[in-house]
Amino acid sequence: MAMEAGIDPSRTGVLIVDPQNDFLSEGGAVWDLVGNGVKETKVLENLVELREAARAAHVPVFYSPHYYTDEEYERWQHLNPIDELMFDRKMFQEGSWGAEFHPDLAPDENTRVLAPHKGLSNFWTGDTSLQLRQRGIQTIILAGMSANLCVESHLRDATENGFDVIMVKDATTGPGPEATQAAYTNYGFIASEITTTEEIANRLRGASSR
Amino acid sequence: MAMEAGIDPSRTGVLIVDPQNDFLSEGGAVWDLVGNGVKETKVLENLVELREAARAAHVPVFYSPHYYTDEEYERWQHLNPIDELMFDRKMFQEGSWGAEFHPDLAPDENTRVLAPHKGLSNFWTGDTSLQLRQRGIQTIILAGMSANLCVESHLRDATENGFDVIMVKDATTGPGPEATQAAYTNYGFIASEITTTEEIANRLRGASSR
Amino acid sequence: MAMEAGIDPSRTGVLIVDPQNDFLSEGGAVWDLVGNGVKETKVLENLVELREAARAAHVPVFYSPHYYTDEEYERWQHLNPIDELMFDRKMFQEGSWGAEFHPDLAPDENTRVLAPHKGLSNFWTGDTSLQLRQRGIQTIILAGMSANLCVESHLRDATENGFDVIMVKDATTGPGPEATQAAYTNYGFIASEITTTEEIANRLRGASSR
Amino acid sequence: MAMEAGIDPSRTGVLIVDPQNDFLSEGGAVWDLVGNGVKETKVLENLVELREAARAAHVPVFYSPHYYTDEEYERWQHLNPIDELMFDRKMFQEGSWGAEFHPDLAPDENTRVLAPHKGLSNFWTGDTSLQLRQRGIQTIILAGMSANLCVESHLRDATENGFDVIMVKDATTGPGPEATQAAYTNYGFIASEITTTEEIANRLRGASSR
Repeated sequence: MAMEAGIDPSRTGVLIVDPQNDFLSEGGAVWDLVGNGVKETKVLENLVELREAARAAHVPVFYSPHYYTDEEYERWQHLNPIDELMFDRKMFQEGSWGAEFHPDLAPDENTRVLAPHKGLSNFWTGDTSLQLRQRGIQTIILAGMSANLCVESHLRDATENGFDVIMVKDATTGPGPEATQAAYTNYGFIASEITTTEEIANRLRGASSR
Repeated sequence: MAMEAGIDPSRTGVLIVDPQNDFLSEGGAVWDLVGNGVKETKVLENLVELREAARAAHVPVFYSPHYYTDEEYERWQHLNPIDELMFDRKMFQEGSWGAEFHPDLAPDENTRVLAPHKGLSNFWTGDTSLQLRQRGIQTIILAGMSANLCVESHLRDATENGFDVIMVKDATTGPGPEATQAAYTNYGFIASEITTTEEIANRLRGASSR
Repeated sequence: MAMEAGIDPSRTGVLIVDPQNDFLSEGGAVWDLVGNGVKETKVLENLVELREAARAAHVPVFYSPHYYTDEEYERWQHLNPIDELMFDRKMFQEGSWGAEFHPDLAPDENTRVLAPHKGLSNFWTGDTSLQLRQRGIQTIILAGMSANLCVESHLRDATENGFDVIMVKDATTGPGPEATQAAYTNYGFIASEITTTEEIANRLRGASSR
Repeated sequence: MAMEAGIDPSRTGVLIVDPQNDFLSEGGAVWDLVGNGVKETKVLENLVELREAARAAHVPVFYSPHYYTDEEYERWQHLNPIDELMFDRKMFQEGSWGAEFHPDLAPDENTRVLAPHKGLSNFWTGDTSLQLRQRGIQTIILAGMSANLCVESHLRDATENGFDVIMVKDATTGPGPEATQAAYTNYGFIASEITTTEEIANRLRGASSR
């Protein structure tokens, strides 16, 4: 894959996972776990820049949101530790402020909001794969929250579905430095390419001007 | 499978596909194709009865809806004939009257609305499988619209995921008698059991009183 | 989709479902159910011709086989009627003559044998989707056995994964005329295009000579 | 989930990923990367013990193997770094010694060999989910190679399919200490429970004697 040489806007999409207040805003459900990383890595600012570069390049941006209902908090029977944490804190509660998209990332005319995912990955409980294939997309530029959980699961499943994935490593972070490092380690094996917001934004802008 | 002997409410769910005006109301997008069947088979009345029997038995009812956006009508590149028909007629258009649930089937406190499906089956582009497994459900009582398209795809995929499926043959119909017959033929091979609304409603009521 | 105008060999694959003795040879496990249809429609001869035309066009042929073990016959707990029929007759028994590919369709250097499917569709319990995507394939020419069961499930799942599917209607048949008719009815809604062996073979040969 | 209190053998399966020479034997394709970890953690010895305890408890053991053909090495178009490493070294080459199961783990009468996976996870390109559901299995005891790649992908996908997963942390290792640490970090979020071979073997033996 010689993607480093250029981006084909007609076959590329940006996929942003969980750009919601519970992850990206002070006061969000897990801000105590991710806030430092979000601020230090400038995840929010980088997502904003990534989104603008995509729009300029006529590359569509897909949001993969994460929602739960009160009934799900009550009824689900098979919870792992991250589920238990989310359920205890009523993270991603439908209709709550925490589940809303961060105001700086409110969907615009270039944003397509996918079905919400219920596990870590939209490929299992949402419509990502079909939505991208129906638009001829082969290359995914992937970012969002959190690095080693939902983002990494989207990365893994994208490759299982035959997509090429470019990870934007400074447009994501994990719940703590160890979690972020775990993600970076695994990206090194699984992502087609790892890049930064600045670098991929430049390539997107270059693609749009060709 | 000796399910005929009884229903275990704690391991059973009712799954209703596309209970929306475009299928079930006069003036819906494909009423010209399905209306006669809906009326003759009393699909709407049977769905109402099925839903009430399920509620009485404390068996949850899941809706698998079908929605499209204007952007999808415009951008999807790989359409088959049924897609083309739906897209031409703007069937299931998000926010339209046609995409709303039929008023007699408005979700109540026993209804869980799944993610919308984008192809024929929620198992590929929605969250059915995980939602049912998270509630310990093994047996699906399946009904809705239309018989040989979305309903049959849900049936096929439920079996691929290891569920037992009881088809309610008079709570569904197809776009024309030939389509309905095709569905019935295939149900005979693929469904664990085929039943009627009256029969399964009685079993549900019996289960709830045990 | 203006595929009728031509085939792009670099983005096309032929997918043949269950080309095994149990379906295609006298004495096979369900020959009593499918034999008349196989003979009258010349399914075997048409599969041979389809395969040769594909090879001439440098279009790869994928086999999706179907196997069961004795342990599976004994242990599986959730059987539908077609499973029960297959299990009673020990159809597709690993290592048996019935599970072998028909001798006229023995894999050649242009054949890639996929993982076996265990339900009706290889997309759920095999590797079809990734194998096709890894070779850049977007259009599937679909044939094999049987028309309304495994073949139709492959068709449905191919569309859920965003592929275009051309059905070869005389290179398949069902267990009886009613089953075949059910398949044809459903193909009319779900397949991107329906064709015959002679027609698609001509298009493949034309594509290869461009 | 109060699984710590006991194992229900009728609803439990052991799933071992890639127990093949290329990972577990000196001279295997990536022994230079995993050999130290395999030896220090006693992965092979622990897998042998796990398998014996499962057999004693009448808990079935499933192998998820990994194979590639020469044609796949040549034709696949969308490779990530771990694919490139495996393909360069012809890892898991069908018919090779490296692709064989380690001799100490040769399948016995309690072993069911699943379809091979082609990406990292058998849930996408194999038959794990249906095989386990068809046997009534709800809890997976997971081990094998390598910790942060194929094993972790099986873990993630098992949870997406509603299974409970008990990770056996000393019956796996990664390609280097950083990779192993990444896996352990992620298991802490995603696995229902993390245990050791000795502990789970004792529980299995206790379950079998009840």
